[in-house]
Amino acid sequence: MAPNGVNGSSGSHRFDPDFTRLVVENMGPNVAPRTRQLLGGLIRHIHDFAREVELTNDEWMAGVHFINSIGQCSTSIRNEAHRVSDILGLESLVDEIAHKLVVEGDVEPTSSSILGPFWSPNAPFRDLGSSIIQDPNPKGRVALMHGTITDLLTGKPIPGAVFDIWQASANGKYDFQDPENQTPNNLRGKFRADENGKYWFYCYHPTAYSLPTDGPAYKLLQLMERHPMRPAHIHIMVTHPDYRGCTTQLYPKDDPWLATDTVFAVKNDLVVDFKPKEGDPKATLDLEYNVILPPKDYKGKL
Amino acid sequence: MAPNGVNGSSGSHRFDPDFTRLVVENMGPNVAPRTRQLLGGLIRHIHDFAREVELTNDEWMAGVHFINSIGQCSTSIRNEAHRVSDILGLESLVDEIAHKLVVEGDVEPTSSSILGPFWSPNAPFRDLGSSIIQDPNPKGRVALMHGTITDLLTGKPIPGAVFDIWQASANGKYDFQDPENQTPNNLRGKFRADENGKYWFYCYHPTAYSLPTDGPAYKLLQLMERHPMRPAHIHIMVTHPDYRGCTTQLYPKDDPWLATDTVFAVKNDLVVDFKPKEGDPKATLDLEYNVILPPKDYKGKL
Repeated sequence: MAPNGVNGSSGSHRFDPDFTRLVVENMGPNVAPRTRQLLGGLIRHIHDFAREVELTNDEWMAGVHFINSIGQCSTSIRNEAHRVSDILGLESLVDEIAHKLVVEGDVEPTSSSILGPFWSPNAPFRDLGSSIIQDPNPKGRVALMHGTITDLLTGKPIPGAVFDIWQASANGKYDFQDPENQTPNNLRGKFRADENGKYWFYCYHPTAYSLPTDGPAYKLLQLMERHPMRPAHIHIMVTHPDYRGCTTQLYPKDDPWLATDTVFAVKNDLVVDFKPKEGDPKATLDLEYNVILPPKDYKGKL
Repeated sequence: MAPNGVNGSSGSHRFDPDFTRLVVENMGPNVAPRTRQLLGGLIRHIHDFAREVELTNDEWMAGVHFINSIGQCSTSIRNEAHRVSDILGLESLVDEIAHKLVVEGDVEPTSSSILGPFWSPNAPFRDLGSSIIQDPNPKGRVALMHGTITDLLTGKPIPGAVFDIWQASANGKYDFQDPENQTPNNLRGKFRADENGKYWFYCYHPTAYSLPTDGPAYKLLQLMERHPMRPAHIHIMVTHPDYRGCTTQLYPKDDPWLATDTVFAVKNDLVVDFKPKEGDPKATLDLEYNVILPPKDYKGKL
């Protein structure tokens, strides 16, 4: 296959060199510049892909049927296009594009990761030291999670930062997905850090789970000989009005799916170590995780 | 924006240079080579597009909703993903990839063009000289269409070649779409060329029509400030067991939409000249169109 030329639309293939330009330039004069850039880039990459692989009519039609099947499987509580873009790595890439920060010093801010489809804007504030476990699952292993939220530049704590956590239960399901076993806001909660920037509460050691295996996203995974598993993870979103917030996920270091996460959302600084805990009747595990936020106006090197 | 590097996944952007490789290499060892090439190329181009335009989270989510809307609008008689790929030029490009033939001599075979969604495998054979007009439309202008089907290399006629024609009526609708006014196979028919490779029959001068304006494809056209019109055209499919068949479309030379066909299916040798016809009580127009087919095993220069 010939490499793409500059702008991706020339190159050494044997096809009409003007066709892609003709399609892009068919856009009218009043198209917004960003729309023109986005759709022009999309058309160029779709065409370059088709020429590079010499896409056949049957393959194109298989793609057409696949695209139709995505929407036909989606409902108000199932977003299959979101899942398909996740397993192709697109949501993780968009997250990187949005949050990439090249710092000047040695300390890095906590890495971001994808929001995913299960965050809720309605999670309740809970008291420091309380539990997010409303509906205990017999297989759940309780952990005391705690840490300090600090400023990237000064290293000082950030009192009043809000630590929002959500996680699946020990059956691998979130409250939305499991109304028989879970009440709304089970395993969700917001905590406000104390005057020392510290937070602490009880939650579960997370449980790995599979993406749904009855739709187009799973068909695509099968075509690629990939499993549908997400490594066990805890979602967190840490915010403060004076800082750039961080939405991310934390992964136990011994999870077998870390290297092959089906949505490619694992980063090294997000892998954590649950330790045995003694002397606490409420928990058998301890997890310390410290979060580092850049000030709101910090731009880094770029 | 930085140009793509070789293989499209490196380049001078500020993002993780290994991410795309990680996603592609997550495919298992038993994936068929062609599947690996197709999906690997697709992932690389999607990622390169996202990095090139620095796709934002909101833009990505708008794309996710758009993809879902395509399938939600599709039915057993409406293939919206087909239409969306058409207005992006993809079906015409796939057609070019499949049929590109670089000939050795001065004579070119008849250009192919896209099949479109309205061909029927059930069109009846009709007698040479008959009409495909079963249900006359008061606005229809009848033409005698005729020509010779010849061999690219020898220039000799191809007796017995099958000339399959289908077209919309003067209201811009095909029989499938217009059961109130049209009986099945109105404006469809197959004709077998005579011993001199000649065919002739009566049909309509074609009528320009709009793609549906109630779905995602039209929304995309509006974003691009493009009209939804296809130039007037006649579909033909010419076949013979010993030749490479030709599926194509013919366009009247005075059609106002030729240069901006919404599916980019016009080529120069497919633009035809309807002439006034006198002395024939059945027709007011005459259209001569000769078709040139390459022998089945002819490979051209490539």
